[in-house]
Amino acid sequence: MSFHSMWAELLPVGRSSASGGYRRFAWTGADADCRAWFEQQARSRGLVHETDRNGNQWAWLGDPAAGDAVVTGSHLDSVPDGGAFDGPLGVVSAFAALDELRGRGARFTRPVGIVNFGDEEGARFGLACVGSRLTAGVLTVEQAHRLTDGDGVTLPQAMEVAGYDPDAIGPDPERLSRIGAFVELHVEQGRALDLSGDPVGIAGAIWPHGRWRFDFRGEANHAGTTRLADRRDPMLSYAGTVLDARHEAELAGAVATFGKIAVEPNGVNAVPSLVRGWLDARAAGQEALDAVVNGVEKAARARAEAHGVALDVERESFTPVVEFDHALRDELARILGKDTDPALRVPVLGTGAGHDAGILSGRIPTAMLFVRNPTGVSHSPAESATEEDCVAGVAALADVLEGLACT
Amino acid sequence: MSFHSMWAELLPVGRSSASGGYRRFAWTGADADCRAWFEQQARSRGLVHETDRNGNQWAWLGDPAAGDAVVTGSHLDSVPDGGAFDGPLGVVSAFAALDELRGRGARFTRPVGIVNFGDEEGARFGLACVGSRLTAGVLTVEQAHRLTDGDGVTLPQAMEVAGYDPDAIGPDPERLSRIGAFVELHVEQGRALDLSGDPVGIAGAIWPHGRWRFDFRGEANHAGTTRLADRRDPMLSYAGTVLDARHEAELAGAVATFGKIAVEPNGVNAVPSLVRGWLDARAAGQEALDAVVNGVEKAARARAEAHGVALDVERESFTPVVEFDHALRDELARILGKDTDPALRVPVLGTGAGHDAGILSGRIPTAMLFVRNPTGVSHSPAESATEEDCVAGVAALADVLEGLACT
Repeated sequence: MSFHSMWAELLPVGRSSASGGYRRFAWTGADADCRAWFEQQARSRGLVHETDRNGNQWAWLGDPAAGDAVVTGSHLDSVPDGGAFDGPLGVVSAFAALDELRGRGARFTRPVGIVNFGDEEGARFGLACVGSRLTAGVLTVEQAHRLTDGDGVTLPQAMEVAGYDPDAIGPDPERLSRIGAFVELHVEQGRALDLSGDPVGIAGAIWPHGRWRFDFRGEANHAGTTRLADRRDPMLSYAGTVLDARHEAELAGAVATFGKIAVEPNGVNAVPSLVRGWLDARAAGQEALDAVVNGVEKAARARAEAHGVALDVERESFTPVVEFDHALRDELARILGKDTDPALRVPVLGTGAGHDAGILSGRIPTAMLFVRNPTGVSHSPAESATEEDCVAGVAALADVLEGLACT
Repeated sequence: MSFHSMWAELLPVGRSSASGGYRRFAWTGADADCRAWFEQQARSRGLVHETDRNGNQWAWLGDPAAGDAVVTGSHLDSVPDGGAFDGPLGVVSAFAALDELRGRGARFTRPVGIVNFGDEEGARFGLACVGSRLTAGVLTVEQAHRLTDGDGVTLPQAMEVAGYDPDAIGPDPERLSRIGAFVELHVEQGRALDLSGDPVGIAGAIWPHGRWRFDFRGEANHAGTTRLADRRDPMLSYAGTVLDARHEAELAGAVATFGKIAVEPNGVNAVPSLVRGWLDARAAGQEALDAVVNGVEKAARARAEAHGVALDVERESFTPVVEFDHALRDELARILGKDTDPALRVPVLGTGAGHDAGILSGRIPTAMLFVRNPTGVSHSPAESATEEDCVAGVAALADVLEGLACT
């Protein structure tokens, strides 16, 4: 089955006719349909299919027990109203690259695996990369048991409803010990490749990044009768801080975003008592990130003080820089002929927190390939990649697998 | 029963122990308790109690059919987590003023009524002053039947559950034709009296005011991987507009508030696709209000254009200036000895949209008395008035009733 046919088959699964976006959430019907598609693709190619204790799906060519396996793949779930490419491009490309290698008559010297990691986006239970985190042991069983969706359904309950055994979940070091390299292909979620003119790129690192909650507390009051001078309006402090964050990010060559807000009482005719805003900040290096976050907090404190507003800032999550395995990255660059001027040809792309490759990089040698996204739009139905670039991605992944796993 | 005792009796009704604020919403159990209290106060004074077709409660001294009645009162319901004074102060003061007049041995020449208007705050069904609007005929029966609360319960269903007949609601011109004057006493919701040093003031007008919805539409995108230059982030346009609104209001001596917001998708790691903000703007005159709203809209359009964001502005509601009856206002000033320098002594207070007195002013001569609020805080548990000022309010209301309705 060609890349095109596989893509077309997967395209309608879990797509909302209202938004045109995808709602493939962990352990739902759409997720089950994606999993059935994966298993069918594996079996139709004579690969050994298995689902591991944490709900990740694997398709094996050769016996993984032999060790030093080369694994590729990604995930099939989506953010709410996400695009078609984030995740599925890596899985479909994996099967297509294997087909390509077989077409080339490649002789495999290492086991090759294709993986679909479960619940990568965390859309349902609020935590990204649950499947790979559990496997790597960076999410404990106790923590996983406490995960609850918006309807109050726990992760174990959801797994059970979907026909899986929640008592089986836990770290899987033996499985990881058999993998010599994991290469995840992913649609780029920015425009670096579009700007550099390359259809395919290699990840250098995942930027350090984190989330900070800013609680601006003022005083609820009547919007019609309270003089401006008598107000302690936290919306003003918040608004100023949003602009400050943009300014600080520009100065540091970083990104900073206030995309989520909660307001109390959130009434049209009420000065708010509380405006809670979340800052998402990321930068190529720790120093730049610190400069942004410290700059935003300092500016926010000055604004809050000027408005008679109290401010609490809390870091809700933080991930230091993730450097992908340098030897593997250099090997990929060599295979793809991009080693002539690595500084130029291997863009260090900010890949966000959500990649299973980032989680696994602490345990096994890991690398990522990116396929050009002409608009850079992601986590949106407008996310895209041209068919030509997707084919180039498959070819690059086939080259990488051939270079790593074949004679 | 003294003012103090009545106040103490009403104080625990519908108060949340969590917030210390009141949740006396129309046709709920707390509302029924307030109504029972009102009826008991009426009967214990030998007043004739009745509930009209729209659920407003009346207590009559003398026969209203005689016409030219003098009515005072306010409402007993609350906003969510509102204060103790907004509404109840006017009702308790009405009974206390009547007691005071009886104590003075006053001889009544006109019927006197005390009223508790139903659903003044609109906390449950989203529309303020439902009781007075229906009576005045400015809310049609059809419109009222479509009012629905957050749980999907319609106004007629809620009335029926509370034991009232929803088929009876509608305009009540005959009732209004018997009223010669309505005087509503209310806690001030600003600091004008605190600043002028007066315990009691008289309302001149309700400022023109309205609500405008600003829809900033950008493009949803990944907060970690989308370059700042590639973003169309509506949160930036919104934030700038919040600051613009404050600036425009300062210039015009008006008030402008962004207190309510809705964001899509409202995710920490997503540049929003939509930020919807509501502008509440009010000014002493129409010209100043126009200047504020036009100024904010113009600034918002410039910001949106700079950010590649689309902007729609829609006026959701608007109420032109309400001038209270000049003759009645001057009569109150004369009675209260505040006619020596009316410009100084009768502050024109912005009273907000929610007063039943504002609704009725289009049908019958109407006036308002305000009692000093030392902090100006309103629609909040921190709303307050000193007992001394409350007693001064009762005395002023007694003087007004004596001046209007006694020989």
